[in-house]
Amino acid sequence: MTERKTVRMLVVVAHGSRREASNAEVVALADRLRLQAGAIFSDVVAGFLEIASPSIPDALEHCAAQGATEIVVFPHFLAAGRHVATDIPGEVAIFAAAHPNIAVTVAPHLGVSALLPQAILALAAPAGA
Amino acid sequence: MTERKTVRMLVVVAHGSRREASNAEVVALADRLRLQAGAIFSDVVAGFLEIASPSIPDALEHCAAQGATEIVVFPHFLAAGRHVATDIPGEVAIFAAAHPNIAVTVAPHLGVSALLPQAILALAAPAGA
Repeated sequence: MTERKTVRMLVVVAHGSRREASNAEVVALADRLRLQAGAIFSDVVAGFLEIASPSIPDALEHCAAQGATEIVVFPHFLAAGRHVATDIPGEVAIFAAAHPNIAVTVAPHLGVSALLPQAILALAAPAGA
Repeated sequence: MTERKTVRMLVVVAHGSRREASNAEVVALADRLRLQAGAIFSDVVAGFLEIASPSIPDALEHCAAQGATEIVVFPHFLAAGRHVATDIPGEVAIFAAAHPNIAVTVAPHLGVSALLPQAILALAAPAGA
Protein backbone atom coordinates (compact mmCIF):
# COMPACT_ATOMS: atom_id res chain seq x y z
CA MET A 1 0.00 0.00 0.00
CA THR A 2 1.39 3.41 -0.96
CA GLU A 3 1.03 6.38 1.34
CA ARG A 4 -1.06 9.20 -0.06
CA LYS A 5 0.69 12.56 -0.40
CA THR A 6 -0.84 15.32 1.74
CA VAL A 7 -2.43 18.11 -0.29
CA ARG A 8 -3.71 20.69 2.19
CA MET A 9 -5.95 23.59 1.17
CA LEU A 10 -7.53 26.52 3.03
CA VAL A 11 -11.02 27.90 2.50
CA VAL A 12 -11.50 31.42 3.91
CA VAL A 13 -15.21 31.70 4.67
CA ALA A 14 -16.85 35.12 4.89
CA HIS A 15 -20.51 36.04 5.20
CA GLY A 16 -20.96 37.48 1.72
CA SER A 17 -22.31 40.95 0.98
CA ARG A 18 -24.50 42.69 -1.56
CA ARG A 19 -21.56 45.09 -1.91
CA GLU A 20 -19.33 43.52 -4.55
CA ALA A 21 -16.33 45.44 -3.17
CA SER A 22 -16.66 43.63 0.17
CA ASN A 23 -16.63 40.23 -1.51
CA ALA A 24 -13.68 41.30 -3.65
CA GLU A 25 -11.77 42.19 -0.45
CA VAL A 26 -12.19 38.60 0.76
CA VAL A 27 -11.02 37.18 -2.55
CA ALA A 28 -8.00 39.52 -2.44
CA LEU A 29 -7.27 38.32 1.10
CA ALA A 30 -7.35 34.70 -0.07
CA ASP A 31 -4.95 35.66 -2.87
CA ARG A 32 -2.55 37.29 -0.37
CA LEU A 33 -2.79 34.21 1.86
CA ARG A 34 -1.98 31.92 -1.06
CA LEU A 35 1.28 33.83 -1.55
CA GLN A 36 2.16 33.65 2.17
CA ALA A 37 0.92 30.14 2.94
CA GLY A 38 4.02 28.57 1.44
CA ALA A 39 4.34 24.97 2.47
CA ILE A 40 1.32 25.04 4.78
CA PHE A 41 -1.46 25.28 2.17
CA SER A 42 -0.99 24.47 -1.49
CA ASP A 43 -4.07 26.54 -2.35
CA VAL A 44 -6.25 29.14 -0.62
CA VAL A 45 -9.73 30.02 -1.86
CA ALA A 46 -12.60 32.18 -0.65
CA GLY A 47 -16.07 30.83 0.11
CA PHE A 48 -19.26 32.67 1.07
CA LEU A 49 -22.03 31.66 3.44
CA GLU A 50 -24.66 33.76 1.68
CA ILE A 51 -25.27 36.05 -1.29
CA ALA A 52 -21.84 35.87 -3.00
CA SER A 53 -20.11 33.05 -4.84
CA PRO A 54 -18.48 30.67 -4.64
CA SER A 55 -20.66 29.19 -1.91
CA ILE A 56 -19.02 27.11 0.81
CA PRO A 57 -20.01 23.81 -0.88
CA ASP A 58 -18.67 25.08 -4.23
CA ALA A 59 -15.38 26.18 -2.66
CA LEU A 60 -15.01 22.80 -0.92
CA GLU A 61 -15.83 20.91 -4.13
CA HIS A 62 -13.24 23.01 -5.96
CA CYS A 63 -10.63 21.85 -3.43
CA ALA A 64 -11.74 18.24 -3.83
CA ALA A 65 -11.48 18.52 -7.61
CA GLN A 66 -7.95 19.91 -7.22
CA GLY A 67 -6.92 16.83 -5.26
CA ALA A 68 -7.11 18.09 -1.68
CA THR A 69 -6.55 15.44 0.97
CA GLU A 70 -6.95 17.93 3.82
CA ILE A 71 -9.08 21.08 3.94
CA VAL A 72 -9.07 23.67 6.69
CA VAL A 73 -12.10 25.97 6.78
CA PHE A 74 -11.36 29.35 8.35
CA PRO A 75 -14.33 31.46 9.55
CA HIS A 76 -13.39 35.05 8.70
CA PHE A 77 -15.72 36.43 11.37
CA LEU A 78 -15.05 38.64 14.37
CA ALA A 79 -17.89 37.32 16.54
CA ALA A 80 -18.81 33.74 17.37
CA GLY A 81 -22.46 34.07 16.42
CA ARG A 82 -24.79 31.56 14.83
CA HIS A 83 -22.85 31.58 11.55
CA VAL A 84 -19.65 30.48 13.28
CA ALA A 85 -21.26 28.18 15.82
CA THR A 86 -23.81 26.41 13.60
CA ASP A 87 -24.04 27.38 9.94
CA ILE A 88 -20.42 26.89 8.85
CA PRO A 89 -19.92 23.59 10.76
CA GLY A 90 -23.21 22.40 9.25
CA GLU A 91 -22.06 23.03 5.68
CA VAL A 92 -18.72 21.42 6.44
CA ALA A 93 -20.35 18.31 7.95
CA ILE A 94 -22.43 17.75 4.80
CA PHE A 95 -19.33 17.97 2.61
CA ALA A 96 -17.29 15.76 4.93
CA ALA A 97 -19.96 13.06 4.89
CA ALA A 98 -19.86 13.02 1.09
CA HIS A 99 -16.04 12.97 1.00
CA PRO A 100 -14.84 10.48 3.62
CA ASN A 101 -11.31 10.46 2.14
CA ILE A 102 -10.78 14.18 2.76
CA ALA A 103 -9.94 15.38 6.29
CA VAL A 104 -11.93 18.58 6.81
CA THR A 105 -11.50 20.73 9.92
CA VAL A 106 -12.86 24.11 10.99
CA ALA A 107 -10.29 26.53 12.45
CA PRO A 108 -11.05 29.01 15.26
CA HIS A 109 -12.67 32.21 13.95
CA LEU A 110 -10.71 35.44 13.53
CA GLY A 111 -12.22 37.04 16.63
CA VAL A 112 -10.16 34.84 18.94
CA SER A 113 -6.82 35.73 17.34
CA ALA A 114 -4.22 36.78 19.88
CA LEU A 115 -2.78 39.06 17.20
CA LEU A 116 -5.85 41.34 17.07
CA PRO A 117 -4.62 43.83 19.70
CA GLN A 118 -1.31 44.19 17.85
CA ALA A 119 -3.12 44.63 14.52
CA ILE A 120 -5.44 47.25 16.04
CA LEU A 121 -2.64 49.23 17.68
CA ALA A 122 -0.72 49.23 14.40
CA LEU A 123 -3.72 50.80 12.64
CA ALA A 124 -4.83 53.15 15.42
CA ALA A 125 -1.59 54.51 16.86
CA PRO A 126 -0.82 58.02 15.60
CA ALA A 127 2.42 58.33 13.63
CA GLY A 128 5.26 58.84 16.08
CA ALA A 129 3.21 57.88 19.15
CA MET B 1 0.16 80.27 28.18
CA THR B 2 0.75 76.72 29.38
CA GLU B 3 0.87 73.84 26.95
CA ARG B 4 -1.90 71.32 27.41
CA LYS B 5 -0.75 67.77 28.20
CA THR B 6 -1.80 65.18 25.60
CA VAL B 7 -4.31 62.63 26.92
CA ARG B 8 -5.00 60.19 24.09
CA MET B 9 -7.78 57.61 24.22
CA LEU B 10 -9.00 54.88 21.88
CA VAL B 11 -12.61 53.93 21.16
CA VAL B 12 -13.02 50.48 19.59
CA VAL B 13 -16.26 50.65 17.62
CA ALA B 14 -18.15 47.46 16.78
CA HIS B 15 -21.56 47.01 15.24
CA GLY B 16 -23.36 45.73 18.33
CA SER B 17 -25.27 42.45 18.50
CA ARG B 18 -28.40 41.04 20.10
CA ARG B 19 -26.06 38.31 21.37
CA GLU B 20 -24.69 39.64 24.63
CA ALA B 21 -21.66 37.34 24.31
CA SER B 22 -20.61 39.10 21.09
CA ASN B 23 -20.73 42.51 22.77
CA ALA B 24 -18.82 41.13 25.74
CA GLU B 25 -16.08 39.93 23.35
CA VAL B 26 -15.61 43.51 22.14
CA VAL B 27 -15.46 44.85 25.69
CA ALA B 28 -12.90 42.15 26.55
CA LEU B 29 -10.87 43.16 23.50
CA ALA B 30 -10.90 46.80 24.67
CA ASP B 31 -9.71 45.59 28.08
CA ARG B 32 -6.85 43.63 26.50
CA LEU B 33 -5.93 46.66 24.40
CA ARG B 34 -5.86 48.90 27.48
CA LEU B 35 -3.23 46.60 28.98
CA GLN B 36 -1.14 46.59 25.78
CA ALA B 37 -1.61 50.22 24.73
CA GLY B 38 0.99 51.43 27.24
CA ALA B 39 2.10 54.95 26.44
CA ILE B 40 0.04 55.19 23.25
CA PHE B 41 -3.46 55.35 24.76
CA SER B 42 -4.17 56.18 28.39
CA ASP B 43 -7.59 54.52 28.11
CA VAL B 44 -9.37 52.18 25.68
CA VAL B 45 -13.14 51.77 25.65
CA ALA B 46 -15.68 49.96 23.49
CA GLY B 47 -18.49 51.70 21.65
CA PHE B 48 -21.36 50.27 19.62
CA LEU B 49 -23.02 51.58 16.48
CA GLU B 50 -26.34 49.87 17.21
CA ILE B 51 -28.18 47.73 19.75
CA ALA B 52 -25.56 47.51 22.53
CA SER B 53 -24.22 50.13 24.90
CA PRO B 54 -22.33 52.30 25.30
CA SER B 55 -23.27 53.98 22.03
CA ILE B 56 -20.54 55.76 20.07
CA PRO B 57 -21.62 59.20 21.41
CA ASP B 58 -21.67 57.85 24.99
CA ALA B 59 -18.20 56.31 24.59
CA LEU B 60 -16.85 59.57 23.15
CA GLU B 61 -18.46 61.64 25.94
CA HIS B 62 -16.92 59.25 28.48
CA CYS B 63 -13.49 60.01 27.02
CA ALA B 64 -14.21 63.76 27.09
CA ALA B 65 -15.27 63.53 30.74
CA GLN B 66 -12.02 61.69 31.52
CA GLY B 67 -10.02 64.59 30.09
CA ALA B 68 -9.14 63.27 26.65
CA THR B 69 -7.40 65.78 24.40
CA GLU B 70 -7.11 63.30 21.51
CA ILE B 71 -9.46 60.45 20.63
CA VAL B 72 -8.85 57.81 17.98
CA VAL B 73 -11.94 55.90 16.81
CA PHE B 74 -11.13 52.41 15.50
CA PRO B 75 -13.76 50.68 13.33
CA HIS B 76 -13.62 47.01 14.37
CA PHE B 77 -15.07 45.88 11.05
CA LEU B 78 -13.70 43.56 8.38
CA ALA B 79 -15.46 45.16 5.42
CA ALA B 80 -15.58 48.81 4.39
CA GLY B 81 -19.35 48.96 4.06
CA ARG B 82 -21.76 51.78 4.84
CA HIS B 83 -21.05 51.59 8.58
CA VAL B 84 -17.35 52.24 8.06
CA ALA B 85 -17.71 54.68 5.15
CA THR B 86 -20.60 56.78 6.43
CA ASP B 87 -22.18 55.94 9.79
CA ILE B 88 -19.10 56.01 12.04
CA PRO B 89 -17.58 59.16 10.49
CA GLY B 90 -21.01 60.79 10.81
CA GLU B 91 -21.23 60.09 14.55
CA VAL B 92 -17.66 61.26 15.00
CA ALA B 93 -18.28 64.51 13.10
CA ILE B 94 -21.22 65.39 15.37
CA PHE B 95 -19.09 64.82 18.48
CA ALA B 96 -16.13 66.73 17.03
CA ALA B 97 -18.29 69.75 16.23
CA ALA B 98 -19.47 69.84 19.85
CA HIS B 99 -15.92 69.42 21.22
CA PRO B 100 -13.61 71.68 19.20
CA ASN B 101 -10.83 71.29 21.79
CA ILE B 102 -10.57 67.52 21.30
CA ALA B 103 -8.77 66.16 18.24
CA VAL B 104 -10.83 63.21 17.01
CA THR B 105 -9.66 60.97 14.18
CA VAL B 106 -10.99 57.76 12.62
CA ALA B 107 -8.40 55.00 12.08
CA PRO B 108 -8.46 52.58 9.12
CA HIS B 109 -10.81 49.64 9.73
CA LEU B 110 -9.54 46.20 10.72
CA GLY B 111 -10.10 44.73 7.26
CA VAL B 112 -7.13 46.61 5.82
CA SER B 113 -4.66 45.34 8.43
CA ALA B 114 -1.50 43.93 6.90
CA LEU B 115 -1.35 41.53 9.86
CA LEU B 116 -4.53 39.66 8.89
CA PRO B 117 -2.81 36.98 6.78
CA GLN B 118 -0.38 36.26 9.63
CA ALA B 119 -3.25 36.11 12.14
CA ILE B 120 -5.24 33.78 9.89
CA LEU B 121 -2.32 31.42 9.23
CA ALA B 122 -1.62 31.25 12.98
CA LEU B 123 -5.21 30.11 13.59
CA ALA B 124 -5.60 27.86 10.55
CA ALA B 125 -2.26 26.07 10.25
CA PRO B 126 -2.41 22.52 11.63
CA ALA B 127 -0.07 21.85 14.55
CA GLY B 128 3.35 20.92 13.19
CA ALA B 129 2.56 22.07 9.64
